[in-house]
Order: sequence, then structure tokens, then C-alpha cells
Amino acid sequence: MNVYASLARPKEECLSLPNRAARRPLEGVTVIDLGQIYQGPYATLLLARAGARVIKVEPLTGDPLRRRELEGEGPSYTLAFLNSDKLGVTLNLKKAAGREILIEMVRRADVLLENFAPGVMERLGVGAEVLMGHNPRLIYASGTGFGLSGPDHDRVAMDPTVQASSGVMSINGEAAGPPLRVGPPLADFMGGTHLYGAVMTALFERERTGEGRVVEVAMQEAVFPTLCSDLGLYHHNGGHLEHRRGNRHGGVAPYNVYPTRDGYIALICVKERHWELLAALMGRPELLDDPRFANNSARVENIEAVDEIVESWSRALTRAEAWEVAHEHRIPCSPVRDLVEVLDDPHMHERGMLQWVDHPDLGRVVLPSSPIRVHGDDPPPLEPNPSMGQHNGDIYGEWLGLGAERVAELEADGVI
Amino acid sequence: MNVYASLARPKEECLSLPNRAARRPLEGVTVIDLGQIYQGPYATLLLARAGARVIKVEPLTGDPLRRRELEGEGPSYTLAFLNSDKLGVTLNLKKAAGREILIEMVRRADVLLENFAPGVMERLGVGAEVLMGHNPRLIYASGTGFGLSGPDHDRVAMDPTVQASSGVMSINGEAAGPPLRVGPPLADFMGGTHLYGAVMTALFERERTGEGRVVEVAMQEAVFPTLCSDLGLYHHNGGHLEHRRGNRHGGVAPYNVYPTRDGYIALICVKERHWELLAALMGRPELLDDPRFANNSARVENIEAVDEIVESWSRALTRAEAWEVAHEHRIPCSPVRDLVEVLDDPHMHERGMLQWVDHPDLGRVVLPSSPIRVHGDDPPPLEPNPSMGQHNGDIYGEWLGLGAERVAELEADGVI
Repeated sequence: MNVYASLARPKEECLSLPNRAARRPLEGVTVIDLGQIYQGPYATLLLARAGARVIKVEPLTGDPLRRRELEGEGPSYTLAFLNSDKLGVTLNLKKAAGREILIEMVRRADVLLENFAPGVMERLGVGAEVLMGHNPRLIYASGTGFGLSGPDHDRVAMDPTVQASSGVMSINGEAAGPPLRVGPPLADFMGGTHLYGAVMTALFERERTGEGRVVEVAMQEAVFPTLCSDLGLYHHNGGHLEHRRGNRHGGVAPYNVYPTRDGYIALICVKERHWELLAALMGRPELLDDPRFANNSARVENIEAVDEIVESWSRALTRAEAWEVAHEHRIPCSPVRDLVEVLDDPHMHERGMLQWVDHPDLGRVVLPSSPIRVHGDDPPPLEPNPSMGQHNGDIYGEWLGLGAERVAELEADGVI
Repeated sequence: MNVYASLARPKEECLSLPNRAARRPLEGVTVIDLGQIYQGPYATLLLARAGARVIKVEPLTGDPLRRRELEGEGPSYTLAFLNSDKLGVTLNLKKAAGREILIEMVRRADVLLENFAPGVMERLGVGAEVLMGHNPRLIYASGTGFGLSGPDHDRVAMDPTVQASSGVMSINGEAAGPPLRVGPPLADFMGGTHLYGAVMTALFERERTGEGRVVEVAMQEAVFPTLCSDLGLYHHNGGHLEHRRGNRHGGVAPYNVYPTRDGYIALICVKERHWELLAALMGRPELLDDPRFANNSARVENIEAVDEIVESWSRALTRAEAWEVAHEHRIPCSPVRDLVEVLDDPHMHERGMLQWVDHPDLGRVVLPSSPIRVHGDDPPPLEPNPSMGQHNGDIYGEWLGLGAERVAELEADGVI
């Protein structure tokens, strides 16, 4: 089934990227990627798109995102989304021969990245200390839910429970409703993005010192800074906690999601000038003389009236009309887009962030490049994620020099 | 007013961090930080906490987060949150003498970071090309809403409008409700975190090439990857779009936020084993023989019944009791904590992510360190954010060598 029937973009329109630059920012950097699901694989996707050679090492049961695929339910789009540009090998770390192979790879690598629970690598006998004993220049990068230390480090961590424990869930949702999980798994992705930064910090430092490092990121800590705005209101209000505010802001009006003829727009007035312009373009200049709306504080006090006025204006327009007229007046506004619209966003396609890829299992799909853009570097078009063990021969047979016969043996023995 | 009355943590209990390591990861790196509000300042907070010398350059009207302070409404906690460990100078880039000073600083710096709208620096005459003409080794880092190129680059961008345009708002909220702004400003913070990664990528590359780079991050692109999970469901469902699902997951049950005697918990069963354990600890072993709950797909089809069962169990417990028993059985679960509880989280305090700081304007407050943790590096305790122009004398008088008299002149002329 073609899920893109609604997009109907002919193949010829696809972005053609310029040729690869002579040298990529992370050229020559080799990453052993034990990452699974989101946090680890997102960090290594960023590494791969910046030019590193990333070797995705999967257990014989595959990255958990492959489970659907292995169970015959069809290929996984999320796996494809996060694993472009990587080489793929299988490896059974529960066998001694598997651990020996890991160590051989680590000897030749710059980075090993994993997002297992704390202690898993140590229990397998391939913790940071062991691996850095074999390669003191290794950057050992760990992504976890709560970190490698502290009283909660051993708590089972997944995105929703980290959202709960870190406070972000308490500030998401309708004012009168229960705490609400943030729709996108921000703990996983804030974790993965910081983990990329951690790896780069240590790689930079190693250029100067020659020494490896253990770096780590806890998802809980990675999302904590996003509480900044709400913590600011809490302090400003003298310790009064409002919890959730739906689409409204505690101290700015207008600031909401408003209905239009064909969906919603987000619109905010963060400067007095925005309100003046909005009154003018709504054809309501008299509002500027109304003491209820005289300044931002007055409008916050009369927020119901403010929102009613803006809504009576927005309801008469389409999203596109509201967006255009707000844009002309430089008022912050945007249509609320659904996922299908975003996948087809001409802007992100033109910038190469979104690319159409002919994927061997999924067919023609949209996949992301990296949000980290280095001018002068022209990353090649996205290379679809490897199939299970696709590069066993290249990596084990050739790179490690084990030869084809030994590779066949290791396969027969359930090591790879 | 002490907003922390409820925490009542005596001063002696505060974490005492070990001494600063001999050499910090980013020691010797100098950053000119024109960042404002969230995206830029968060990136430079990470740089500062990793050991870079960050010079926060504010217009004479201050970072917009200071407006409250300048208007006499009291100091800004959000400003303090994001600007620890930075030096602070004032600079009027609308004056020729101000731009000359910026160029003198850039000659001596490694990184210039800004998150103005596209074109602002060029219109001031200090765009990337001009600055890199003065220092070809400069990393010029730009954070924007939609990027420096593409059809939408000139759209006014703030966190809520970027959330709307990037699709994240469409997947946040109750299933039957309107699209909902994600409570924490994830576009700003995902943008800032990627921007740190972009700077580090270019700094690493420069160690090998000796050349500077322009790097950029668009907030819209930085949040796009967080759609991964929902896009996966969309593809798996053959192009059927569900939009929002409240606290539930489209393909996993149990997966929800459940009420307890004293608040809520988040609890999910991502493995069959979790459900088996949950049934046992709820004292409901008969559920395992019920065909409605025989496997995950069956439970997703009977999600109302599943949630009713879990809720009838959780309602009898406190959050802490539910958390402990789930922890014993290794079922992913967490109390939903509010901001006050998070500020006092013993785990993040023990790890040094949260620190009590005696702030000159705010009094004793909790401020964050960096989620990027480099083992063996012991960052010093947080240094409170600079006041307006606090280091004008140090930076202009001494570092640039202008001397105290010239600094006084520049102040009198409204240049600094």
C-alpha cells in the first residue's frame, strides 16, 4: 500500500543534492553503534550524516524496532528513519567469540555508543573499563534514562516514565485535565541529541589530549532544561504553581491555538506592536482604546475576551489566509500542520532535511537528514538502513581481516 | 519571598563538588555569545559548562529575558537558569564603534553564536562573511526557526509557531481535543541542543583542517525527528492518520497515566513479561487466561477494560507505593512529579545536575548544570549569570586592551 497517495509528488521533482564534498566533517571517525530504538540510534544518525563511519551492531534478534519485521509484520519505518547511512552487522555478545570480535572492532574504532540500562555492558564483560583497556583513545558513550550513578540510576526508564519523573508531563495538557504525556518522545530525542554533543565534546578534546573519555547523558537530565519557562513563572509568581495551561501562556495574550475554516493556527503576540498590528488587520482599531486590552497585563486578565475576539477573526479565514496576512505584518503565526502535510513540506524538502528515498523494503518514503547543517559540506543522498547483518562480510571478513571462511563459521556458530 | 519554603533543605546538605580538573574539555575555547532568550543561550550554557570561556554580549536593552528586571519587576529566573558560568558585556551593534569592538573580539575568538532572525547580522554589517574575513578560523553558528534558506526562512518563528508548523502540535493533546502546544518549549531546546552539537562538529573538524565554518540549526528541523514514532504508526497503518492519542499509545497496552491516592503514575508494559508481572502484583493472575488480554494486540483492542483494571489497582495506592512495587518487578513506572518535586529531586541533586546557588539577585535557588557529563571532568560549582555589563572592564579594558579610560568613554557614548 502506498501511504503517500495523498502527496502525489512525481519522482522527477525530488531534490538532487550536489556531490559530496572532498572531506566530510567527521571523515575518518569510526563509531561502533550498539544503540537501540531511539536515543542511541538518533545520536549515531547525526554522527553518520556528519560523515562518520557508523557500524550498527545488532543482536541476532535485531534492534527491537525490527521485531515487527522479524515477526513478519512488515518492515519498520521507524528503523529506517533512524538508521540511514549506517553499516550493519550482527553480533552475539553473550558468546565469548562475540565479545572478542567486539574488542577487535573497538581497537580500530574511535567511539563506542550504547544505550543499554546501566550495568548491562559490565555484566557482559565489555564495560567501559575493559574496552578502554584495549583502546585508551576510545570515547565510550552511554545513554540511559537516569544516568550511571545516583539513587534512581537503576529505575527502569522509558520515554513516558522519564517524562513523568522529570516534570515535563506535569506541565503538558489542558488546564483542567490530568497530566499529559508529551506526544513526541522528547526524552528519547533530547537524550540522543545531547549524546551526540557529548561524543563530539570528547572527540574534540581527544584531538588535543590524545585520550579517550567516558561520556554519558541521562534522559531525565536532558529534558530538565525544557522546564525553564514554567519554572520562571513559578518563581515570578512567588512559588505559586499553575501546572498546566493548555495552549495558553501564563503571562502573554494573545497566545493560543485558534480555529479557522480548515483547521487551526497558532498565533502569539509577544510584543505590544504585534497586538497593535493584529487589531488593525482584524479591522478592529477600536480595541487599542479599550482599557481591557491596554497592555499585555490587561489582556492576560481579560484573556477570555481576547481569545474570543481573535477567534471570531480566525474562524472566517483558512489557515493559509491567516498565515499570509500575519506574515505580512510580522506577527508570529503558523498553521497547525498534520504529519502528512509535514512530510510533504516544500521548505524542508528544498533544504534537503527531508528526502525521498527508494527504500528496498518500504518502497518510496520520506526520510530525514540531520538538523545539524555545516555550510560547505554537501552530505550525499540518504543511504537506506542496512538489513540484518548486511555488512558482516565487509566488516568482519575484510575490515577485521577474518576472511570469508571464518565469517561463515561464525554465522554457523550463532556468533554473528 | 522564598518560593522554596516547601523544600526546606538546609544549606549544609548541598552538594559539594570536587575541585575543578586540571584541564576542562573545552578549555581555551572562546565563544562570543549573541544568543537571546532560549535557543542560543542554552547552546552556550552547554559550552560554558564544558569549560569554554563564553562572553555573553547583550544590547544596551539587555537580553529580552532581562526586560522584566529592567522594568523593575524583579530579576529573571529564566535568565539565571540559562546563563550561569558566562562573562557578560554590553554592546551596541547599531553604532560603528560597537561593530568595531565586535570584530576585535571575533579576531580573538573561536566561535560566534547568534540566534537572531536570518539577515539581522548582515544588515548590521557583521554577517558571517565579514566576520570570517577577519578570522577565517571562526566557527559562525546560527540558530533560527526555519533556517537560513528555503521558502519559509523569513517566517517569524517562535517556539509555539514552530511547534505548529513542524507537526508536533498535531500529535500532542487528548484524542478528542484540539491540537495542543507541547508544554515545555521543545523547539527552542531541541534547537539549542543541536546547535551545541553543530558547534562541536565544526570545532572538531577545525582541529584537523584549521578552517572555520558556518553551521546552522533550524528549530523546525531539530524537532522533526521527534515525529518518528507517530510517523511509524502512520506508515504501519497504511497511511491512516490518528493525530492525537492523549496518554495512550496506538499500539501498546497498558500504556497510560493512571490515578493514585495522591496523584498520578505513568506505567507501560512494553514486553509481554511486564503484563504477566503486573497481573501477578495486582493479585489478578486470572487475567492471564482471559482471551481479551492474551497478547498485546488483544489488549490494544480491549484497551478500555485494560485501563479500568490497572486503574482499580493504582487508585488504592500512593504514587510512591505503586512506584516501588513496579520497580521491584522491573515494570516501567514513575510518579508524575510536579515542578517543585523535581527541583528537589535527590537523585539529580546527588548527581550535581541540580545545584543550590546563592544568586546575588534571586537569593538561594536551584539551577541546572549540563546534561552532558564527561567522566573525569569535575565542573566547578555554578557561577551565577553576569549582571548587565559586569565584565565590560575585564573584556574591553583588559582582554581587548582598550584601557579603563576608553571603556569609560565607550560607556558615555552609548557604545557599551
